[in-house]
Amino acid sequence: MNYSLNSLPAREVKPRERGFTMAMDKGLSIREVEDFLEVAGEYVDIVKLGWGTSYVVPNLEKKLDVYRAAGIPTYFGGTLFEAFIVRNQFDDYRRVLDKYKMTFAEVSDGSIELDHDLKCGYIKTLAEQVTVLSEVGSKDAEKIIPPYKWINLMQAELDAGAWKVIGEAREGGNVGLFRSTGEVRSGLVEEILTKIPFEKIIWEAPIKAQQVWFVKLLGANVNLGNIAPSEIVPLETVRLGLRGDTFFHFLNQETGNLKDC
Amino acid sequence: MNYSLNSLPAREVKPRERGFTMAMDKGLSIREVEDFLEVAGEYVDIVKLGWGTSYVVPNLEKKLDVYRAAGIPTYFGGTLFEAFIVRNQFDDYRRVLDKYKMTFAEVSDGSIELDHDLKCGYIKTLAEQVTVLSEVGSKDAEKIIPPYKWINLMQAELDAGAWKVIGEAREGGNVGLFRSTGEVRSGLVEEILTKIPFEKIIWEAPIKAQQVWFVKLLGANVNLGNIAPSEIVPLETVRLGLRGDTFFHFLNQETGNLKDC
Amino acid sequence: MNYSLNSLPAREVKPRERGFTMAMDKGLSIREVEDFLEVAGEYVDIVKLGWGTSYVVPNLEKKLDVYRAAGIPTYFGGTLFEAFIVRNQFDDYRRVLDKYKMTFAEVSDGSIELDHDLKCGYIKTLAEQVTVLSEVGSKDAEKIIPPYKWINLMQAELDAGAWKVIGEAREGGNVGLFRSTGEVRSGLVEEILTKIPFEKIIWEAPIKAQQVWFVKLLGANVNLGNIAPSEIVPLETVRLGLRGDTFFHFLNQETGNLKDC
Repeated sequence: MNYSLNSLPAREVKPRERGFTMAMDKGLSIREVEDFLEVAGEYVDIVKLGWGTSYVVPNLEKKLDVYRAAGIPTYFGGTLFEAFIVRNQFDDYRRVLDKYKMTFAEVSDGSIELDHDLKCGYIKTLAEQVTVLSEVGSKDAEKIIPPYKWINLMQAELDAGAWKVIGEAREGGNVGLFRSTGEVRSGLVEEILTKIPFEKIIWEAPIKAQQVWFVKLLGANVNLGNIAPSEIVPLETVRLGLRGDTFFHFLNQETGNLKDC
Repeated sequence: MNYSLNSLPAREVKPRERGFTMAMDKGLSIREVEDFLEVAGEYVDIVKLGWGTSYVVPNLEKKLDVYRAAGIPTYFGGTLFEAFIVRNQFDDYRRVLDKYKMTFAEVSDGSIELDHDLKCGYIKTLAEQVTVLSEVGSKDAEKIIPPYKWINLMQAELDAGAWKVIGEAREGGNVGLFRSTGEVRSGLVEEILTKIPFEKIIWEAPIKAQQVWFVKLLGANVNLGNIAPSEIVPLETVRLGLRGDTFFHFLNQETGNLKDC
Repeated sequence: MNYSLNSLPAREVKPRERGFTMAMDKGLSIREVEDFLEVAGEYVDIVKLGWGTSYVVPNLEKKLDVYRAAGIPTYFGGTLFEAFIVRNQFDDYRRVLDKYKMTFAEVSDGSIELDHDLKCGYIKTLAEQVTVLSEVGSKDAEKIIPPYKWINLMQAELDAGAWKVIGEAREGGNVGLFRSTGEVRSGLVEEILTKIPFEKIIWEAPIKAQQVWFVKLLGANVNLGNIAPSEIVPLETVRLGLRGDTFFHFLNQETGNLKDC
């Protein structure tokens, strides 16, 4: 850090299981990736190439090399997995993962209907090839999954071999964990956490108010995802209480010392 | 493309009259233009230098060279044309187009009141010098033009020599084709299309929900404009059904094969 | 300028006390700073490193050098000052300013409760070391300060040695000068201006509608702050009447000549 400030919350360092940040690359150029890593390389743990953007970008191979050289793993967004599944091209998908030497993959059913045993089967199969992130929650704002079911789905997917599970929110932060207004379904989050270990969940939280909400509920070292590259540094300040939104969350207002939180 | 996926809608390739994408540059640096073209060069057909930004940017000449070298035409936003007209400097405007070797120009009346015969006269005169895009619709949210009049205006401007007509929405996507909430005036669009050929219209649609609406109504190869440089790749995935929003639009949900749409 | 347009409002040039633009850097890379300055260097007068971002960015020293070489002063956001104060580390803060050779600093109480005499004391002390910007207004949307009090606070802070005072709005433009909807508290602004000199105030106005509102009320050469780097060029066109929003503000609709405004 550039200078010394007392009473900051302790932040996990890399490689970390908690306080993990997943960024969303939806079509950066090579120089933009380099710029992003110059500033935020220490704070980002994994990068998702959003939905099917990896199909259309002309710099895919080179971009993956740049991330790899920086020691930051990448994976294709779950919508791409679903695009292969719905076309009965699962084997092709596995070959694509090999072709691009991917070490992570996402299994999701945000757009398609997928029998849950079948979904867990895909997780199991892919887990032999790569580290699997699985995602729970629909991209359809109309589909409300009750909390007990979120929990059952998450547990089954972890049991099937998922390394971590992701709570769906999309790039817009307006479905799944969130109401269409962007407001957090807080009862849902709290109930999930009674059963699924904290470090096993990555919460998609693209909007600042959502990041603040999670940091206030779960602390500096909550796992957050779908963060825009330019928002990684701002998020880091939210985690540390160095932005107005969480300024007093970690700090005793009278003494300026760290609170127990 | 980077890998093979079945049953994707057919996309027109360059040079194309349909499936055309117009991007908005509102003050990019030279490197930012290069980065933009690295990623989206194949998907962008023309670039608008938004409103009067070309007056203030210090890198205009060099930037135009970079676009030219990439084979992507550019034009000054219609507000600049109007700024010259309202000051009785039309001849100066023509000299500016020459000075910068522009091959396209926009004629619009989004901010000024312009007699329509006069507007068509400007189109006719400029069409001898450059390829003309003309724009219909006011930037004033209060001015609602009824559908039959949109059609008459568009037809007269095409007759006067406009290559294509643009449906106004601004950078914010909240006037003209759209209600102030950003919602599409869908009856208006459908009525226009009963009279004006599909490929003759560029719809300004800066917001994702608007792009999705147009792709769902008019297919992968609808002409769209006012797209931010960083949103060209995401738009391309919307066109191809590789983002949640249009995932099943082109695809039969049961078979995973292409639908007729 | 790239070409000649009649009847544009006169813009102050650097170094300027009026028509001043403060930009917000919340974690740019070195190349992004260079790109920003290539395009907007002439239009930006000072750059704020937002809140505590300077603590976490790994390129701080080098970035400050780039700004310095371009003749653009920088300062740390007021939240950082507050983070040192609340921890009783004011002397450390002064040493940080020295270490980074800062020539400007901000004194604010947007997040902390600070006795106003004490705040003025900090302004006075820091004014011996650097040029001080002081900020009035809370980051808490619930705290509404009545206009007479804004005036008293601003006057006292100028008397204590602040070079200019800043009206709080945050990056989101939704507190302080603005209602939570982003709407301007216009009565407040007008009342402040009956007592505090125009050129002594920098209005935070991150959202375009807010910038337009200030330019319409106070002219091309109003001092505005918290502008995103990519919005500096667009703001310059708003100041000059070269964007739809202020197109006729400076211009007589009939003659196309400059209005008295």
